[in-house]
Amino acid sequence: MGQEKEEYKNKANWDKFLPGLAIDCVIVGYHERELKILIMEYENTDLYALPGGFIEKDEDLDKAASKVLKERTGLKDIYLSQFHTFGRHDRSDTDAMKIVMENNDIKYDENHWLLRRFVSVGYVALVDYKAVAPTPGIMSSKCTWFDLDSIPTLIQDHREIIDEALLYLRNHVDNKLLGANLLVDTFTMKDLQKLHETILGEKLHRTGFHRKMMDSGHLKRLGKKKTGKAHRSPYLYRFVTENDMD
Amino acid sequence: MGQEKEEYKNKANWDKFLPGLAIDCVIVGYHERELKILIMEYENTDLYALPGGFIEKDEDLDKAASKVLKERTGLKDIYLSQFHTFGRHDRSDTDAMKIVMENNDIKYDENHWLLRRFVSVGYVALVDYKAVAPTPGIMSSKCTWFDLDSIPTLIQDHREIIDEALLYLRNHVDNKLLGANLLVDTFTMKDLQKLHETILGEKLHRTGFHRKMMDSGHLKRLGKKKTGKAHRSPYLYRFVTENDMD
Repeated sequence: MGQEKEEYKNKANWDKFLPGLAIDCVIVGYHERELKILIMEYENTDLYALPGGFIEKDEDLDKAASKVLKERTGLKDIYLSQFHTFGRHDRSDTDAMKIVMENNDIKYDENHWLLRRFVSVGYVALVDYKAVAPTPGIMSSKCTWFDLDSIPTLIQDHREIIDEALLYLRNHVDNKLLGANLLVDTFTMKDLQKLHETILGEKLHRTGFHRKMMDSGHLKRLGKKKTGKAHRSPYLYRFVTENDMD
Repeated sequence: MGQEKEEYKNKANWDKFLPGLAIDCVIVGYHERELKILIMEYENTDLYALPGGFIEKDEDLDKAASKVLKERTGLKDIYLSQFHTFGRHDRSDTDAMKIVMENNDIKYDENHWLLRRFVSVGYVALVDYKAVAPTPGIMSSKCTWFDLDSIPTLIQDHREIIDEALLYLRNHVDNKLLGANLLVDTFTMKDLQKLHETILGEKLHRTGFHRKMMDSGHLKRLGKKKTGKAHRSPYLYRFVTENDMD
């Protein structure tokens, strides 16, 4: 990480990125009816932000998003969905960015690359926060799961980006790709229903939910879960993969 | 338009836009079970493209999209939804862009602003193509509705952008705002069902559709349509507005 940090301090190096375009990742953690959000704290600043970064000049946008996530949080092989691009002309937060640079010994003037206007492409992922272990990346000292109701004040419009991401998740909770990060192997219908209820913030009717999920074509029913109590054993399911189509 | 065209030819003027970021608009026209797409033809080139443009340095992304649409097509007051940002590193089509510039007497070298990589934010709108009258804008000589099955070869990844826009419309057909541009004032349930069926490309069950629409809370039932045949008169509906909430 030492060498990468030196690269960030080297002014010339900003030129390898597309100017004025950023990526912000909303990593939503779920476990047992709880939702959390992964937040970065910039080293020595008390400034909080979403994990974010930039796109190299010869790099695809989607690949850059995966790389940003890996570099900032240590998380990899996570399916990210692009959900919205944030482009208000006054969304930058130059005061915060100056503090970050000062605390990282980055020399700047008022025209510094990082102080210009940025349009940011938002990506969202849903993961099991017990199963993933984030580690802070370049320019961030902490990388922490926060409950939805105790998110600290964030720089720029990052709070709005989180709210849009949660809205997107609610509208796309049926999308198996979003669930794919979460319910990796097998799960019961009750597990899946709890997940949907937590994201939607409302109770769902059991039989209606079951029928809708089976109608979706995204699920494959496996054997019964071994519980030791035969009459209570629920079926296990997994998401259909491309191999199932053969 | 003459003056605006001169501005496009003036190299210095590109500096007023954010570099490397574009907007492309997919305007889907609907009328009587038919879907069409609005396509631009660049002056003297035989090159076809979506209506698109750039974002001024102090302009909000969403406002820029509305302005691009108005400048390129003459269409205004149309509700645009941002649906996806296209960022493959090799999506540019420099050969096409050179032809466009040559045919517009724009002098360029290999580093010209227009020949660099662009990430493009896609916007989509659904309109009644009988009710709107597009007129070509700067650098486009024609502005034409094409049937979905006769869209000409387009520059860059514009065909992919159209396919993504249609997928977005199918996934969001219930969104009242999408319908609002289209079924102006009042309409019958059959009108609304025809619209949904055309976008989805499939037949829907009448009673199920009716129940779903009424459950959505987006519709307000008015009086019966006057047809002269009392027993056949269907109810008229309109979309709920903010005033209905008071």
